[in-house]
Amino acid sequence: MTTRNVLGLDVGGSSIKYQLASVAADGLPVVVQQDTLPTPESDPIAAFAAIARQLAGDDLAGVVIAIPGLVDSDSGTVLRSVNLPHLDGLRLGPLLGDLLEVPVDVVNDGRAAAIAEARWGAGDGHHDVFTLALGTGIAGCHVVGGEVAAGAHGIAGELGHIVVDPHGELCGCGQHGCLETVIGAPALRRAWRAAGGEGSPRDLLGAYENGDVRALPIVERAGNALGDALLTLLALVDPGCIVIGGGLASSPHRLVQLAVTRVDEKATFHVVPPIVSAELGRWAGAVGCIGIAVDRLTRAVHASAAR
Amino acid sequence: MTTRNVLGLDVGGSSIKYQLASVAADGLPVVVQQDTLPTPESDPIAAFAAIARQLAGDDLAGVVIAIPGLVDSDSGTVLRSVNLPHLDGLRLGPLLGDLLEVPVDVVNDGRAAAIAEARWGAGDGHHDVFTLALGTGIAGCHVVGGEVAAGAHGIAGELGHIVVDPHGELCGCGQHGCLETVIGAPALRRAWRAAGGEGSPRDLLGAYENGDVRALPIVERAGNALGDALLTLLALVDPGCIVIGGGLASSPHRLVQLAVTRVDEKATFHVVPPIVSAELGRWAGAVGCIGIAVDRLTRAVHASAAR
Ligand SMILES: [Zn+2]
Ligand SMILES: [Zn+2]
Repeated sequence: MTTRNVLGLDVGGSSIKYQLASVAADGLPVVVQQDTLPTPESDPIAAFAAIARQLAGDDLAGVVIAIPGLVDSDSGTVLRSVNLPHLDGLRLGPLLGDLLEVPVDVVNDGRAAAIAEARWGAGDGHHDVFTLALGTGIAGCHVVGGEVAAGAHGIAGELGHIVVDPHGELCGCGQHGCLETVIGAPALRRAWRAAGGEGSPRDLLGAYENGDVRALPIVERAGNALGDALLTLLALVDPGCIVIGGGLASSPHRLVQLAVTRVDEKATFHVVPPIVSAELGRWAGAVGCIGIAVDRLTRAVHASAAR
Repeated sequence: MTTRNVLGLDVGGSSIKYQLASVAADGLPVVVQQDTLPTPESDPIAAFAAIARQLAGDDLAGVVIAIPGLVDSDSGTVLRSVNLPHLDGLRLGPLLGDLLEVPVDVVNDGRAAAIAEARWGAGDGHHDVFTLALGTGIAGCHVVGGEVAAGAHGIAGELGHIVVDPHGELCGCGQHGCLETVIGAPALRRAWRAAGGEGSPRDLLGAYENGDVRALPIVERAGNALGDALLTLLALVDPGCIVIGGGLASSPHRLVQLAVTRVDEKATFHVVPPIVSAELGRWAGAVGCIGIAVDRLTRAVHASAAR
C-alpha cells in the first residue's frame, strides 16, 4: 500500500468542517488539509462527490461523513437530522460510495468526536473512556479500545437521560427528571430567567462565579446532579477516564468542578478515574472521521494479507 | 488435541459443587461428572490438589475455581472471602497450578455463574447479557460475547449500589439509599418486621400474594426501585437481554414482575430487552468454571497453531 488519501467531513447545518489525511503504509494518518466549506443546500450526493473529488483528487481511498442526528451506520443511512432535514432517509453511504467508487461511512457526529477525544484527545492512553458533551443536550459515549461500545440496540451511554429527580420536569425523551432537565442549556436558561437573571447559561455561570445568590442554587443543583449521575456511571460502567466537553464545559469550569467535588465526596467503593476536559474542540468530529476511515483501510489491508 | 478433562470447582462455605468435563478437539465440553464435596477446612492447596487428582486422574488439562468473595483473577489470588476466611490472601492459582502442573484460574463465583447463564442459560443466543442476582446482596454482571465486561477497574455492573433514594438508609458500601438498601433481603426483612410481619423476605412476598396490606407498600417500593434501576441500566448499558436470578427471584416472581411492569410503563427512548429468569440454578457457578476452562484450552490451541 502506498500513501493514500482519506477524507473526513463533519457536516453541520451551515458549514462542513473537513480534514484530508494521507495514510502511510503503517496506517498512520497525516493531516494535509483542514478547513471549512458551506454545507450544500440541495442535491447532497452530487455536492459531496464534487467536494471529495476536488479535495482528494484521484487518490481517494475512503470517505467518512459525520451527521448531527440519528444514523444507521450499518446501512449508511441518515435516519433523522433536525439540522439537515433534506438528508432525512437518504442512503448517503451507498449512493455516494457508488459515485466515488470508494467506501463511504456515515456516523453520528457526537460519536465521531467521542472516538477522536478517546484516541487522540483527552482520553489518549486510556483503553476505556466515557465522553460527555454538555450543551443543549447531554450526549454520553462509551469508547472501548478506540471503538464505540453502543450496546445491543445502539443507545448505550445515554447519561443525559438517566432520571436524577423522579418529580422533576418533563424531558424531551418523555421521562420526568432526566439529568438533561436539570443541567441541559435550556433548563439552565429557564431556571435563570425564573430567578430573575438575564442572558444565557454562560451568564448564569458567570453570575455564580461573582457570588450572585440567585445563581447559587441553580448551579449547585446542576453540579450535584451531574456528580450523582457520574457516580451511577462509575458503579455501572467503571470507565478508565471521563472526558467532558461541549459548550457548557468549555465556558467557566465551575459546573464540572462542582460535579467532580461531589463525586470525590460521595464515592465509596467506586474508583474515581481522571475526569478531564475535552481537548480537540470543534475539530473533534472531523478528526474522528479520519480515525474511522483509517480503521477501514487497515482492516482492508489485513483482510487481503490473510487471503 | 485428544479429549482432555477440565475441572470446575464452585467453592462455598460448607460444600463444593464440582463439574468434570471432557473437552473434545472441537472445544465442546461434555460434563462427565457432577456432584458436591465438603469444603476442606484446612490446608486448602493440598486438599484441592487431592480432589483434582482423584476426580480427573492423569488427564487433567485445567482447573477453574470459583470463590465467593473478592479475587484478583490476573494473579490467581483470593483477596477477601467472608465465607472462606482461611483463603484470604492465598495465591491459590499459582500454588495449586505448580502442584498440579496445569493452569489454575481463580474467579469470583457470581461472575462464573453470570458467564454460564449468559452462554448456556437464560441468555443463550444473546451477544450482550446483563445478569442480576437478587439475594442478601444485589450482584450485577455485564457479559459481552461470553466474557465479563468488568470495566477499567473491575467493578462495572454494580447495579445494587446505584442510589435510588438519596434520603434512604445507610448501605454497607457507605452510600445512602443504594438499590440494595431497598430490595436486598436484609432490608426487606427489616421493613417486614417493622410492619408487624413475621418470617423471611419470602414470607413477605407470600403475604403480598395473599393481599396482606402490610406487605403491599414494601413490595411495591422494592419492585418500583428495581424497575427504576433497570431503566438506568437500559439508558447507560443497553443490554440485549437481562437475566434475573438469586433467592428472591426464584421465590414468588412478583418482585421481578413488578419491576418489569414498571419498566414497560416508564420506558420512552429505551429499548426494553427480554427480561428473563435465570435457568441454571445452583450449578451455574460450576458450569461457568467449565466455560472459562474451555476458553483457556481453546486459546492455547490457537496460540500453538499460530506458531
Ligand atoms: Zn430524558
Ligand atoms: Zn451501596
